[in-house]
Amino acid sequence: MSLTAPLRGVVPPVCTPLDSRGEIDTTSLVRLVEHLIGGGVHGLFALGSTSEVAYLTDEQRATVLETVVNATDGRVPVLAGVIDTTTARVVEHAKSAAALGADALVATAPFYTRTHAKEIAGHFRRLRAEVDLPLFAYDIPVAVHSKLSAALVRELAEDGTLAGLKDSSGDEGGLRRLVVELGGREGRGNGPIPDFSILTGSELTVDAALLAGADGVVPGIGNVDPAGYVRLYEAARAGDWTLAAKEQERLIELFAMVDVGPEADMGRSSSALGSFKSALQLLGVIECGDTAFPQIQLSAESVALVSARLRDAGLPPVR
Amino acid sequence: MSLTAPLRGVVPPVCTPLDSRGEIDTTSLVRLVEHLIGGGVHGLFALGSTSEVAYLTDEQRATVLETVVNATDGRVPVLAGVIDTTTARVVEHAKSAAALGADALVATAPFYTRTHAKEIAGHFRRLRAEVDLPLFAYDIPVAVHSKLSAALVRELAEDGTLAGLKDSSGDEGGLRRLVVELGGREGRGNGPIPDFSILTGSELTVDAALLAGADGVVPGIGNVDPAGYVRLYEAARAGDWTLAAKEQERLIELFAMVDVGPEADMGRSSSALGSFKSALQLLGVIECGDTAFPQIQLSAESVALVSARLRDAGLPPVR
Amino acid sequence: MSLTAPLRGVVPPVCTPLDSRGEIDTTSLVRLVEHLIGGGVHGLFALGSTSEVAYLTDEQRATVLETVVNATDGRVPVLAGVIDTTTARVVEHAKSAAALGADALVATAPFYTRTHAKEIAGHFRRLRAEVDLPLFAYDIPVAVHSKLSAALVRELAEDGTLAGLKDSSGDEGGLRRLVVELGGREGRGNGPIPDFSILTGSELTVDAALLAGADGVVPGIGNVDPAGYVRLYEAARAGDWTLAAKEQERLIELFAMVDVGPEADMGRSSSALGSFKSALQLLGVIECGDTAFPQIQLSAESVALVSARLRDAGLPPVR
Amino acid sequence: MSLTAPLRGVVPPVCTPLDSRGEIDTTSLVRLVEHLIGGGVHGLFALGSTSEVAYLTDEQRATVLETVVNATDGRVPVLAGVIDTTTARVVEHAKSAAALGADALVATAPFYTRTHAKEIAGHFRRLRAEVDLPLFAYDIPVAVHSKLSAALVRELAEDGTLAGLKDSSGDEGGLRRLVVELGGREGRGNGPIPDFSILTGSELTVDAALLAGADGVVPGIGNVDPAGYVRLYEAARAGDWTLAAKEQERLIELFAMVDVGPEADMGRSSSALGSFKSALQLLGVIECGDTAFPQIQLSAESVALVSARLRDAGLPPVR
Repeated sequence: MSLTAPLRGVVPPVCTPLDSRGEIDTTSLVRLVEHLIGGGVHGLFALGSTSEVAYLTDEQRATVLETVVNATDGRVPVLAGVIDTTTARVVEHAKSAAALGADALVATAPFYTRTHAKEIAGHFRRLRAEVDLPLFAYDIPVAVHSKLSAALVRELAEDGTLAGLKDSSGDEGGLRRLVVELGGREGRGNGPIPDFSILTGSELTVDAALLAGADGVVPGIGNVDPAGYVRLYEAARAGDWTLAAKEQERLIELFAMVDVGPEADMGRSSSALGSFKSALQLLGVIECGDTAFPQIQLSAESVALVSARLRDAGLPPVR
Repeated sequence: MSLTAPLRGVVPPVCTPLDSRGEIDTTSLVRLVEHLIGGGVHGLFALGSTSEVAYLTDEQRATVLETVVNATDGRVPVLAGVIDTTTARVVEHAKSAAALGADALVATAPFYTRTHAKEIAGHFRRLRAEVDLPLFAYDIPVAVHSKLSAALVRELAEDGTLAGLKDSSGDEGGLRRLVVELGGREGRGNGPIPDFSILTGSELTVDAALLAGADGVVPGIGNVDPAGYVRLYEAARAGDWTLAAKEQERLIELFAMVDVGPEADMGRSSSALGSFKSALQLLGVIECGDTAFPQIQLSAESVALVSARLRDAGLPPVR
Repeated sequence: MSLTAPLRGVVPPVCTPLDSRGEIDTTSLVRLVEHLIGGGVHGLFALGSTSEVAYLTDEQRATVLETVVNATDGRVPVLAGVIDTTTARVVEHAKSAAALGADALVATAPFYTRTHAKEIAGHFRRLRAEVDLPLFAYDIPVAVHSKLSAALVRELAEDGTLAGLKDSSGDEGGLRRLVVELGGREGRGNGPIPDFSILTGSELTVDAALLAGADGVVPGIGNVDPAGYVRLYEAARAGDWTLAAKEQERLIELFAMVDVGPEADMGRSSSALGSFKSALQLLGVIECGDTAFPQIQLSAESVALVSARLRDAGLPPVR
Repeated sequence: MSLTAPLRGVVPPVCTPLDSRGEIDTTSLVRLVEHLIGGGVHGLFALGSTSEVAYLTDEQRATVLETVVNATDGRVPVLAGVIDTTTARVVEHAKSAAALGADALVATAPFYTRTHAKEIAGHFRRLRAEVDLPLFAYDIPVAVHSKLSAALVRELAEDGTLAGLKDSSGDEGGLRRLVVELGGREGRGNGPIPDFSILTGSELTVDAALLAGADGVVPGIGNVDPAGYVRLYEAARAGDWTLAAKEQERLIELFAMVDVGPEADMGRSSSALGSFKSALQLLGVIECGDTAFPQIQLSAESVALVSARLRDAGLPPVR
């Protein structure tokens, strides 16, 4: 399915179900795709950070993308993360993603290396030139340790390099300034880059981002409750901000599942990913809630807490 | 004027006008207080970061606070920043502020030193015990290089140490989680700490913060356009989120004045403070737009840009 | 005693003994000065970070400096820390230190504020102009969150603003480059700034710093074992690097006392300061090992560990 | 050539010569290997950060390693960097490196992801279990944004997971503490882990690291002047610390070539790598000095500065 610009709505980063040996569980992945599309989402983002892309071999990445594209079967667009250290390696992922049928690419700035803004601009331009698919910049300083400036994003949007931005920087003020520079929440369609799509990765302030003029959201916990985010999105589109905020609050309570992990034993990232996958397992969507090695797995107590959060949010576990 | 709990509304951090020798210009400060109260603000925050408190000697701080308290004359509450490295020094500022008639205190975590969360808790408890005024925690990691956790804020709110939080952390998701933990945007008055006040310092996302359930805002650029922030606040209180967002967008365009400074020659902080004071000078509110030494002053070109921003925002300069 | 340029040797940052109420224990402080001078040190640095300067009120700071200057009685130079957020406040401390008889001043870059390199240069120049005492720049990014560049230090050394550098940045490679730029370890006396003094605050690599061409060291744990650092320094001056390294290793083993604090309960800074003061108390030099509020105190188990470290290093406790 | 434990001496991270199309120039790479072995180095580290490993595709990495192994022909051990985000991907590189004849592996902690110390320990243990080659931990926080603690390194050394540490953390004090914990500079052979090798990546303080008890150095600029680092190492082994320091100072002056890049246009990393490769080109060792895309290339003026640095250090350019 080719992308209608600008991309709008709820586009969850699809979790990658693993079996107990750490291999991709494609049956569960197909079920997860149905769960998400059934929840009404507007697109799928495969091979993002929440998909544990950084833990997957190239072969596993291909298995994931092929499975998601086939299961989706054109019902919504599929964006593919092409996450690697620098340009030549990312281009290889991008060519592979194009061959597997992705509708758009999502790439970060280089990481591991230290890279100047001019070099980052060259990186995105080369990607766009090498593979003819809409390209989203993925701004995620917590992973790549540099921030894409508004000036850089705007330059790359205006020259046609970027089709959109996935902003996981947490800098809501900066995002707001970008929207205003591009014509404002109501004027963007008449602004300098009418088709540029702004998606927020800040899943706890989606009502605020939509009020500000963002086009959509890429919520990790949207794996667990896609319908909730769709309701939030639709309330916002309808201008019912009070309802949107109420739905957002329910999702924030659900999100508290990420705190389950004992800090002494595992990282915040592992406990967040582990809680999402554990919730999907409890809901019967995927078979096994394990995260990829070397992440430490949730304890039985932590799983019980996830279960309680689901129940409180009106999503009763089936196991 | 004693504080009605919870404190709500627009509470600008009052700029500190200086004359060309770097001394406090009390005449201009009185005019600024009138400008702010005339704009409809609900409180004043003297001796905050935007007030250049870290640049002022103890004597200058006393002059500022005395001038603001007297000029305000009980029309709105006056909060006083008590900014210093650690407890004993902060207590001295707090006693001085109480003697000068402040209605509430605003204190950060210790800085320069590295301080554990348990030590920070002790710090705020000692302050509360030593000086009997409502105490606001000022969460400003960009200055003090530690973040107050939601758990710590909640603990100190529940035991009566804190009357409120001034959140300048930029962590909107964290702020949102705190609101939800305290009962949610509509339920806070029935929650565990009904009178606890949450003020955001993120001046570019005020509509979003109010939608989320914050009580008010402490906007630096509110010095320049207090009436604009009051309109934004009132639209939000009335549930007219579209109008609130529109006003926010106008204020974001005005805020672009902070970019005037040539980065090669001055810090972002100096250019932001310099642009606010320059705008106040151009509007005829204060006599001289200088910032405190060793900050570098805006060039004539930069002042011209500030002037253009004012004009674009419907605030025509008078000089 | 006026400073002979360049300042060379062992210059401990003098701990500030407190009584159990948190007040300055001047009797213990006098004993500590004797302990240090008796150990052969070449200067004293009062009111540094290890002196808990950031925890002391202005009145307490004056008491400390007066006590150290009087107890020293000109036998070695006394350097005074003038630690505060920005220039006007630092100038006040500097004038007070000059009046109390300090032989030199030690100042950091501004903190709490964000300050451009050109503004930092202005800060040091103003300090030098306002108070006529040799001025040392104190490079301590862990506290002030900016690093003095080699270019800035060199510029301020060449124009006579700075008499020296106290480098607590931990950037040994950068320090080495500075030495080379100033003429190299053997050529500095004939270099562009023959009298400029480079002191390292990296107490675990003093042999290395002296081999590299540093003039001396400001070791926190030199409070506990000043004679050890003097032996290390003299071995290095004599070119006996093997002996210097052996002494350094003994001091590193002693330094392990800083690890005593349970990380769950106190910061690394509090456990380091607490262990130094506890060791001085165990050695009978000071009366009480308490650190300033809000730092959490060492437990009895931690004190026992400090005691064991002293014994292992050949410094048997007397209590 | 199998590794003699502990690995000692000068082990440069071998630059990766590229032609003007960005492909591996194997002829130049063979010449570079001869240049290094001819300079007397004790080992070679292929596919490290200085080798631009993060810019190379898997195929290019294989070409590099195969070329280095074949050209070396067993004269010195070849260590291979296996740099990727997490365990499964690193294991693939490790298997490939083993198949290509590497004598040892060098792996970092996971990056892009946020990983707990216990997870990092699992990562190294799995690597060791999967591929039977000596494993070095590569501590490089500037690239991976986490620091390996001394406790973790020691645990992994004691249980046989690690054969050594390549420390590019810049934390010289921490390195010194590790040496002392392992028995001290003279006692390590009788300590708990007699064969554990400690190599520093801090190329400006090698004399200091060797005085402290490190076994060797991995100097980026050792590509340009391998014989200089070998002289430094031999002087240190002979206990002639003054000669070692003198050689170190000459190498620091040579190192100033990394400052050539105009900061406005390229990152520090690009200018450092560009200056090393430009120097090798000027010395006639490699054909083309280009760095990998998207790094910006040195200007002609910058190359002229590199040339001057070479001449000053007694290494006259041949072109």
